[in-house]
Amino acid sequence: MSRPALGLIPPADYRDMITDIVMPAAPEGLDAVQMLMCGGCANEYAYKIAFMHHQAKKRGTQPATDEEMESCLWNQSPGSPNLSILSFVGGFHGRTTASLSCCHAKPAHKLDFPTLPWPHAPFPQLKYPLSDHVQENVAEETRCLKEVERLIEEKAEEGQTVAGVVIEPIQGEGGDNWASPSFFKQLQAICKKRDILFMVDEVQTGVAITGKMWAFEHWGLDEAPDAVIFAKKMISAGFFYKSNLIPHEAFRVFNTWMGDPHKLVILKAVLETIREDKLIENMAVQGQALQSGLLDLQSKYSDVIKNVRGVGSLVAFDGSDPGTRDNIIKLMSNRGVLTAGCGKETVRLRPATILEGSHVEIFLAALDDILGEISPSVKVGEAQAN
Amino acid sequence: MSRPALGLIPPADYRDMITDIVMPAAPEGLDAVQMLMCGGCANEYAYKIAFMHHQAKKRGTQPATDEEMESCLWNQSPGSPNLSILSFVGGFHGRTTASLSCCHAKPAHKLDFPTLPWPHAPFPQLKYPLSDHVQENVAEETRCLKEVERLIEEKAEEGQTVAGVVIEPIQGEGGDNWASPSFFKQLQAICKKRDILFMVDEVQTGVAITGKMWAFEHWGLDEAPDAVIFAKKMISAGFFYKSNLIPHEAFRVFNTWMGDPHKLVILKAVLETIREDKLIENMAVQGQALQSGLLDLQSKYSDVIKNVRGVGSLVAFDGSDPGTRDNIIKLMSNRGVLTAGCGKETVRLRPATILEGSHVEIFLAALDDILGEISPSVKVGEAQAN
Repeated sequence: MSRPALGLIPPADYRDMITDIVMPAAPEGLDAVQMLMCGGCANEYAYKIAFMHHQAKKRGTQPATDEEMESCLWNQSPGSPNLSILSFVGGFHGRTTASLSCCHAKPAHKLDFPTLPWPHAPFPQLKYPLSDHVQENVAEETRCLKEVERLIEEKAEEGQTVAGVVIEPIQGEGGDNWASPSFFKQLQAICKKRDILFMVDEVQTGVAITGKMWAFEHWGLDEAPDAVIFAKKMISAGFFYKSNLIPHEAFRVFNTWMGDPHKLVILKAVLETIREDKLIENMAVQGQALQSGLLDLQSKYSDVIKNVRGVGSLVAFDGSDPGTRDNIIKLMSNRGVLTAGCGKETVRLRPATILEGSHVEIFLAALDDILGEISPSVKVGEAQAN
Repeated sequence: MSRPALGLIPPADYRDMITDIVMPAAPEGLDAVQMLMCGGCANEYAYKIAFMHHQAKKRGTQPATDEEMESCLWNQSPGSPNLSILSFVGGFHGRTTASLSCCHAKPAHKLDFPTLPWPHAPFPQLKYPLSDHVQENVAEETRCLKEVERLIEEKAEEGQTVAGVVIEPIQGEGGDNWASPSFFKQLQAICKKRDILFMVDEVQTGVAITGKMWAFEHWGLDEAPDAVIFAKKMISAGFFYKSNLIPHEAFRVFNTWMGDPHKLVILKAVLETIREDKLIENMAVQGQALQSGLLDLQSKYSDVIKNVRGVGSLVAFDGSDPGTRDNIIKLMSNRGVLTAGCGKETVRLRPATILEGSHVEIFLAALDDILGEISPSVKVGEAQAN
C-alpha cells in the first residue's frame, strides 16, 4: 500500500528486484540500469548522462567551479552549458521538453511549445523493396551520415557542443522508417570517434517484437550502444547503460519515485512468459507470415498499398496516399482489427508478443477484404468474391 | 496484470475512478484534472496548458498557419514560440528540462544541464517571527512583486512572452520559505491582469500536511489558481485545472501511460483514511504542538536554532549555520528520527498525516537532547540532565 521514494528509502527487496527481474533483460555489455517513470523522462535522464559525461571529461580531475555552481541556478552558462543531443527528422522520443526537442515527427506533438535549439539530421529515406534499390539506399545512408558530421561541426562553430545522439532503430511515429545495420554501425563509429554518447531509443522497438529482445541486436555491433532507453512493453521505463557512465555524485539522476516496484512484479511475469513461451522466436515466426502475406496483398492491390517492410513482427506498409491510409485504418477498425497510422501514409502493426498464426490469418483476411473494397482496379464482383 | 495506454484504451472503469476517487480531492473551482507520471512532468504538462492558452488567444478563431506547423518540427519560431514560465529564486519543480528551468534551489539539480532562458523573480525573504517584522516583510513582498512585473516587461522587450507563473506555497527544497496570503493574492492579480496562468505547485505542500487539503486554501483567494500541480502524497501525479483551459484538439497533452490506475486504488484508501480519521484536522492540531514545542526549544537553545516557522505540520527551523544544521540532522538520525535539510541551513519536517501526539513528544525530546549536546551555552552537566 505504500509508494516508496525509491532513491531514498527503497523497499528492502528492491535491489534484488532490479538484479533478478530487470537486469536479465539488459542487452549484453550494458551493466547498469536507471529506472524512471515514462519513456519521455527516461530519454531526458539518459541525455543528462551524456551531458555529465561531457562536462566530466572537460573538467578532468578538477571540481566544478564556483562560477559553474552559481550560474547553473540562473539557467546560464557555464553551469548550464550550451550542449545538445542530435536527433533525426521523423524521430519521436517523448513529450517533456528535452525529449520533445528531439522529436521531428508531427506538429501535434510540438506546436506552441518552446524547445531547445538542438540539431536534427535527416533519417535515411530508403526505397522498398530494399533488394531492388541497394545502391541508391547506400548512397542515401551515406548522405545522412555526412549530414550528422556536418551538423556536429556546424553547431560547434556556433558554440554548441553535441554531447550525444539519440535514434530509434525503426522510427515509429515518423512512419516506420527503416535503416540498415551498416548505417547504425557507422553512426556509432562517428559517436565513438568524437566521444559523444550513442543512445538508442527502444521504447517502441524493444522487448521481443522484432524477433530479438532489442531491435539493435539485429545490427551486429561490436560493442553495445552507450544507453538503451525502454518503456512500453517493459512495463516500467528507464534505460540500460554502461556502468562507467554512472555519475560520481549521488542525487544527480533522481526524482521522488524513480520507478515503481509494483510494475516490476508485472514485468517479472511478462519476462517469464516471454522466456517460457519462446515469444521472441514467436515474433520472428509470425512476423515472417505477416510480411509474406502482406507482400502478396501488395502484389494484388499495388494501386492501394506499397512499401511493405518490417523486422520480425514490427511491420508496416504504406497506403497509396494519406487518405487511403486513413480509410484502411477506419475500415479495419470497423471489422474489429486495430491498426495505427504513423508518418504521412503508413499503417503500422504492433502486435502483442502472444500473436498466433490464427491471428495473422484473421488480420490478412480482413485486410484482403477491405483492400478489395477500396481498390479501384478490383471490380465490385471480384471484391465481393473475396 | 495489464498496463493500459490510458489516453487511448483506458480500462472501462477508469473514468469512474477519476470521477469518484481523484475529483473529490480537487480544490473548489478546479473542475478538470490531467493525470501524469511524476511531479516533474506534471509541471511540464501544466506549462503546456499555459503555452497553448497563450497561443490560442493570439490566434483567435484562426487555425495554426502552415509556417507554424512546419517550423515547430524544427524547434523554430513561430511554431515553437519564445514563451516562458516565470518562477522564483529558491523554487523547485522537478528535473525534466522545463520544470528544471524553473528550479533555482541547488546546483546539484542543475549543474551541467542545458536549460531554457526563462526568468526568475526573487521569493520574499521574510524575517521571523513574522509578528515582530510586519512592516519589513510587507516591504520585502512588495519588492518581489514589483520584480515580477519588471521581469515580465523586460522579457517582453527581449521578445520573450511570459505565459505563466509557477510557485510553491512554501518553498521546500529552497529552504521552507514562507510568504503571506497577501503576497500570493497580489501575484494572482498580476497574472489575471496580464491573462497569464497562475500555477501553484503543491507537490510538496498538498494533501493535508498544512492543516488544509491544499496549502493555497490558507490564502483566501476569491478564485482558484488556474492549475494546482500534485504528486507525492497524492500517490499519482498530475494537475487540477479549469475546464475552460482543456485544449480543443485531442492528443496535445498525452503520453503512453498518462497515469496509473493501480495508484488510484491506493489513493482511494489514502483519501478515505484522511477523511474518516480526520487527518487534515490532525495535521493542524499536531502542527500546533510541534511548532509550540519548537518555539520553546528555540528560546532554550537560541544559539543553535532559529526561525521556527510552519503552516500546520509543514514545519521547519534553521540551524545557526549550515554545519550546525547538518549536525542536527545527523544526530537526530542516530536516534532514529529522520529529518531532512533544505536551503542552506534549514531542517524541514514532513511528518506523515498519521502523526500522533506521542510522536511529537518523542521528536521534541530527542531534539531537546541533541540540541543540549550541541549548544555551547549548555554546560555538560546541564545537557546530561536533559
